Amino acid sequence: MSVIYDKVALIGLGLIASSMCHAIKRAGVAREITGFARSAETRETARELDLCTVFDSAAEAVEGADLVVLCVPIGAMGAVMQDIAPALKPGATVSDVGSVKRAVFDAVIPQLPKGVHFIGGHPMAGTEHSGPRSGFAELFDNRWCLIVPPENVDEAALTRLTDFWAGLGSNINMMEVDHHDLVCAVVSHAPHLIAYTMVGVADDLHRVTDTEVIKYSAAGFRDFTRIAASDPTMWRDVFLTNKEATLEILGRFTEELFALQRAIRMGDGDHLFDYFTRTRAIRRGIIDAGQDTAAPDFGRAPVKKD
Amino acid sequence: MSVIYDKVALIGLGLIASSMCHAIKRAGVAREITGFARSAETRETARELDLCTVFDSAAEAVEGADLVVLCVPIGAMGAVMQDIAPALKPGATVSDVGSVKRAVFDAVIPQLPKGVHFIGGHPMAGTEHSGPRSGFAELFDNRWCLIVPPENVDEAALTRLTDFWAGLGSNINMMEVDHHDLVCAVVSHAPHLIAYTMVGVADDLHRVTDTEVIKYSAAGFRDFTRIAASDPTMWRDVFLTNKEATLEILGRFTEELFALQRAIRMGDGDHLFDYFTRTRAIRRGIIDAGQDTAAPDFGRAPVKKD
Repeated sequence: MSVIYDKVALIGLGLIASSMCHAIKRAGVAREITGFARSAETRETARELDLCTVFDSAAEAVEGADLVVLCVPIGAMGAVMQDIAPALKPGATVSDVGSVKRAVFDAVIPQLPKGVHFIGGHPMAGTEHSGPRSGFAELFDNRWCLIVPPENVDEAALTRLTDFWAGLGSNINMMEVDHHDLVCAVVSHAPHLIAYTMVGVADDLHRVTDTEVIKYSAAGFRDFTRIAASDPTMWRDVFLTNKEATLEILGRFTEELFALQRAIRMGDGDHLFDYFTRTRAIRRGIIDAGQDTAAPDFGRAPVKKD
Repeated sequence: MSVIYDKVALIGLGLIASSMCHAIKRAGVAREITGFARSAETRETARELDLCTVFDSAAEAVEGADLVVLCVPIGAMGAVMQDIAPALKPGATVSDVGSVKRAVFDAVIPQLPKGVHFIGGHPMAGTEHSGPRSGFAELFDNRWCLIVPPENVDEAALTRLTDFWAGLGSNINMMEVDHHDLVCAVVSHAPHLIAYTMVGVADDLHRVTDTEVIKYSAAGFRDFTRIAASDPTMWRDVFLTNKEATLEILGRFTEELFALQRAIRMGDGDHLFDYFTRTRAIRRGIIDAGQDTAAPDFGRAPVKKD
């Protein structure tokens, strides 16, 4: 792999940025990586791990950078842009890794200096861990990275950013900004809120103990906790900034859930049977598309503690 | 492992019963296995696989059996009991593998001949596949099998059944019948209905294509499809027979979901953040209890098609 950017600056040094540091080095797609994090403790950890050259201000970190990637929660992007805008190099590209794109466009584009490009990015990869120590080079391997260009995108800048993410191991797809937010509301944001809710409900019940919930979680509940363990700040911002699409999907979900609850109450077995037959077919589609394994135990065995 | 029952009869020859055949042979806990399935095709397949001695009526299959296990959907248990009651051997034990226990007690116990014991069983194990070909000996290994005794249970019969399931690889827990149904409503039945609903909603949306839903399913949606692919008949009967507990949990779920939707609509970030921090702690509990892996990618990689 050849060098794509001389200097890449990462603002925010959590799971995604630290994984990018490892993946950039593995691929050799940048000569130099600089970084900044708001918390002094995170900066200290990043220095200790030698992730990149860590600066004490975002403006210093982006100086001379060809690519600046905003790896902070969506709600913090506007303020970061304010800090770095005067220091951005003409011809540079600013991108991000947020899970919502319209809100990032609104926060970033108006503050963009002339001659600096912006192209949205969304690597669909993560784990339930946060912080600079949780990163690893393989995080993006074979994962989708959605690239969301603004209107009148600079084609050369777009090709370069696409090559960069492909170098980090991602599969690339291009998506229009509002369609991106709707797709993510369906496949990610609404499912996460529902998972958070289900886990919260189980925790609230006093007649069923926490021990029981945890002990028997493999019966279905466990699948919810998996995604309900993601970073609280990140997800707060996702819901606050993709409000309309998420609420629309949740509204549809509630309607549908009420219809099924009614079928249960009325004893309408045919309605339930037909519904469950349809959803089973969707699962088969996901397996056929190679997005999951059909192995018994749904692809994972319970793991014994060491 | 020594022989626990001379003759075990399995009524219904789907995923659970066929796995029991394999596991019984592996453990050597029975000298003889007989079986019956309502569908001629299933009986034919079971004969072809040499799972057990297959009879063309349930009454013939249970003749002389020391243990009879009802492996049919919950809604069919009453009718099966009517068929087999006159043929049951005095001193035999009847058990079952249903996910709901009060409804099975109500369907089975009134029809029990004098001198025949009934003890409920619920092996918490499964895959998204159904039918006699889907069984395998390891299905119950390290899985919970909940044993639900009636009042005044015969202690010798209870010990024998417990030893039998332990021989098949299960970890055993004893539970009172109504508590069983409530625990299962929380950890399994409500999560399944919610998963079915979410998958159905995604399928209904026309602005987001099926291809997109499937392609990007790893972002959260996939975790729902996993459990929404289970057997439609079995799950229809679960919801119809554990109606009250399931509806109660779903009611609590809906309240909680409305509160979170309201927080999103009002922009109440603190409410969301606090809620998500709490659910994250529950996930940690599950990992600490050895019920799941903390590995990146949540324990499973997407699988390439051959």
